[in-house]
Amino acid sequence: MPASAEAFVAEVRPGEVVVEAPVRADAALQFIGRIHTPWKSPRECPRRGDLGGPVCRVEIFPPWDQALWGIEKHSHLQILYWMHLARRDLAVQSPRHAETSSGTFALRSPNRPNPIAASLVELVGVEGNTLLVRGLDCVDGTPLVDIKPETCPHATPREADGNSAS
Amino acid sequence: MPASAEAFVAEVRPGEVVVEAPVRADAALQFIGRIHTPWKSPRECPRRGDLGGPVCRVEIFPPWDQALWGIEKHSHLQILYWMHLARRDLAVQSPRHAETSSGTFALRSPNRPNPIAASLVELVGVEGNTLLVRGLDCVDGTPLVDIKPETCPHATPREADGNSAS
Repeated sequence: MPASAEAFVAEVRPGEVVVEAPVRADAALQFIGRIHTPWKSPRECPRRGDLGGPVCRVEIFPPWDQALWGIEKHSHLQILYWMHLARRDLAVQSPRHAETSSGTFALRSPNRPNPIAASLVELVGVEGNTLLVRGLDCVDGTPLVDIKPETCPHATPREADGNSAS
Repeated sequence: MPASAEAFVAEVRPGEVVVEAPVRADAALQFIGRIHTPWKSPRECPRRGDLGGPVCRVEIFPPWDQALWGIEKHSHLQILYWMHLARRDLAVQSPRHAETSSGTFALRSPNRPNPIAASLVELVGVEGNTLLVRGLDCVDGTPLVDIKPETCPHATPREADGNSAS
């Protein structure tokens, strides 16, 4: 099967439960930037973020570049992004590497009713309106939703979400 | 000043930068449940979540209650919720307890272009379509956006977001 976004979105595996309800629009998200990574398709993405992984670029669009003031004081950030290639209709999923099915909320799969990832990254540099970070695992071009200081202890790299195949 | 939501939303402090751009609708969020807490207004909320705090109830609406299957295997969860009382137009903020102003992305204030909180909680029970958790700090009635297994180390309670005054 070609590693295309379409193939990724269409696939439903045995044991999975698809919800028929249409997506409601209870609130509007605005994309405030774009994430640049080395991975051009979901199947190329690492399975989870790695704080020792490659440097990725988080570009912030105006006027929100003004909101970066003071960001360099934080060694680690939480990056929220929109997993635009994910399904939003799976209530139960059968991850590729798992033996059994699980409810969507018991998984960190990209497929969820609101496909927002929360990834821990290390901030390694700031260039104008762009952050250089390690720890992402999403596909190149992923829309950015938020940036927050991360307050989790960092003794060991933790699993992070990804806009990647589950 | 009365502790009303309106007073919370309207206030702009010295040193803050308001962005004039209208909110775009690049993606639609659907509310999948509602959070029940002891705090009836933002000013009653604790400043940050506390894993030793009171038990709160996270109610999941159908059909997404099906997605809870297996959730009890996880001791800690990440709860994403929509801070419906927050401002979305502040690029630089002067938090009440800080000496200087900071960019919005250098703060965990509820006021941000996409007011989504990511809170660490301990799962203490499941009753049908409702999770009993400790660690939240949001106002009663806050809309639920997502639930994920938390993978951060838990040696010490960490700061969590809140739909509370900053």
